[in-house]
Amino acid sequence: MKKLINHPDDVVREALEGLAAAHPDTLRVNLKPAYVVRADAPLAGKVGVVSGGGSGHEPLHTGYVGKGMLDAACPGQVFTSPTPDQVAEATAAVNGGAGVLHIVKNYTGDVLNFEMATEIVAEDGIEVTAVVIDDDVAVTDSLYTAGRRGVGATVLAEKIAGAAAEEGRPLAQVAAVCRTVNANARSMGIALTSCTVPQVGHPTFDLGEDEMEVGIGIHGEPGRSRSVLRQADEIVEMLAGPILDDLGAETGDQVLALVNGMGATPLLELYVVYRRLHSLLEEQGLRVVRRLVGSYITSLDMAGCSVTLLKMDKELLRLWDAPVFTPALSWG
Amino acid sequence: MKKLINHPDDVVREALEGLAAAHPDTLRVNLKPAYVVRADAPLAGKVGVVSGGGSGHEPLHTGYVGKGMLDAACPGQVFTSPTPDQVAEATAAVNGGAGVLHIVKNYTGDVLNFEMATEIVAEDGIEVTAVVIDDDVAVTDSLYTAGRRGVGATVLAEKIAGAAAEEGRPLAQVAAVCRTVNANARSMGIALTSCTVPQVGHPTFDLGEDEMEVGIGIHGEPGRSRSVLRQADEIVEMLAGPILDDLGAETGDQVLALVNGMGATPLLELYVVYRRLHSLLEEQGLRVVRRLVGSYITSLDMAGCSVTLLKMDKELLRLWDAPVFTPALSWG
Repeated sequence: MKKLINHPDDVVREALEGLAAAHPDTLRVNLKPAYVVRADAPLAGKVGVVSGGGSGHEPLHTGYVGKGMLDAACPGQVFTSPTPDQVAEATAAVNGGAGVLHIVKNYTGDVLNFEMATEIVAEDGIEVTAVVIDDDVAVTDSLYTAGRRGVGATVLAEKIAGAAAEEGRPLAQVAAVCRTVNANARSMGIALTSCTVPQVGHPTFDLGEDEMEVGIGIHGEPGRSRSVLRQADEIVEMLAGPILDDLGAETGDQVLALVNGMGATPLLELYVVYRRLHSLLEEQGLRVVRRLVGSYITSLDMAGCSVTLLKMDKELLRLWDAPVFTPALSWG
Repeated sequence: MKKLINHPDDVVREALEGLAAAHPDTLRVNLKPAYVVRADAPLAGKVGVVSGGGSGHEPLHTGYVGKGMLDAACPGQVFTSPTPDQVAEATAAVNGGAGVLHIVKNYTGDVLNFEMATEIVAEDGIEVTAVVIDDDVAVTDSLYTAGRRGVGATVLAEKIAGAAAEEGRPLAQVAAVCRTVNANARSMGIALTSCTVPQVGHPTFDLGEDEMEVGIGIHGEPGRSRSVLRQADEIVEMLAGPILDDLGAETGDQVLALVNGMGATPLLELYVVYRRLHSLLEEQGLRVVRRLVGSYITSLDMAGCSVTLLKMDKELLRLWDAPVFTPALSWG
């Protein structure tokens, strides 16, 4: 295992300490229990937006804490759900009296622990609404999930719901816009290599030199099938097909396209992927109105990519374009 | 070789086509010869800022084209200098009548080809000043270089000189600020794995499972030594030591710290690296006033990192903080 780490048990804590030292104007880090909150939290009268999940998907979620996106992120150990007390304390820390939105990727442990956190903070009169993200069309159920997994749409939901909260909208509306994002987004990914969990020390799965895993999950869960390694254009077609079938997009629809690297994939390759995705969407009569190309929801050192499409309307576009100031996503 | 590409010969062109499709509001791409210019170029009366070099270091340079940074980038083939005509045409395309700054990483081919481009555009009366970046303290001469290699400081020089040009300063001043950045910046990197050039198809060099290359270049050139794999904190000390020795920073100095991933290194690990770098600099009595943690100048799919330190003053700080809108670096 070749990693830039000290002891495997310390990776998450040390990365959080690094995050805190690197972004003092944007966020604060609490270590016991572990959560990250924006530097000016709590904001009176503003809905808090909280997400979280296992570590190893950076910049998701900790890199999205800041003005215009998340009020707090709760990082679990690598590929491990955050505990209820992490989520409860983070929720309380960003409660400005207007309630808190939980954005939860659909993994059994995450859903359960966010629910338990909601019960804990309810005792203090904090109102929480949860929206579960389940955009991965690759599989119906998987290793860690009943129902579809939550993947790339989480980034988009955090940005857009974060913008709605920043505008001062009430909890019900912030939750509604988050649900709209989830309902209108679909994703699928492939892996060229496995990831290696630091505390395990060897690759999660084996892939031959000429193989790829199609429909991979962000923890190395198996996908739909194993295939011989294809060229980038064919891979795009293998991903976009199931996404478009499920999304039900129609000629003239506007979409946001996210081409996401899984952690060890160079940007050069992601732009080769975006090239074909763009032309394929145009061939389908869709209009790509916004795009994001980079590593936004990763799986440690896995090589591969995922594609997410989100059907946009005027309101989602406006919220997407709203200013955001986080370590990993920033525009003014 | 596992890469998300089509034919190895087409990678650079296809990535440029993807870049153009992804960022139509920010930049335009010319394919023959290949260069990228900001969407609103040329700007009358503004100094043009042009950089370039071999591809495979993305987001450098093409991802830094846009308002507040580069007016143009000239991408060569992978790890291959751009040709004189690429640079000459890009220079002419961004010439607004106030002259053009060339920011050139110190590699023999790059320096030569930028010089030849300068001679070509001189025939059309375009004034060019070149600043050569040579911040890598690892080696004195290397495989592709007489003198030190240009690495991480290039990103900082492009941002800061770009801001000076955006303010409307004359060419001599924009070049002077670029020289100031180079004079006050030092870098060094390590590799945990080799990169693989698409057209070669196998790793550039071999590293054992418990080895790392200390002082690596961004094309896989050998560094100072091969070492057993160390923990992240030790690696930071191995990099910061030579940098600080050469930089001549004194107690109370302000620095910008860049922790850069080489292409296949997860962000989680880069924050573990930043953690120790930050504490080490504080122990030295330095004040880290700005930082950048991510993959900004890469070496294809190499795993590893580099550290760059830039001594800051009030003027450099102001220019660093100025708004920038490029695909890879953006703040308002």
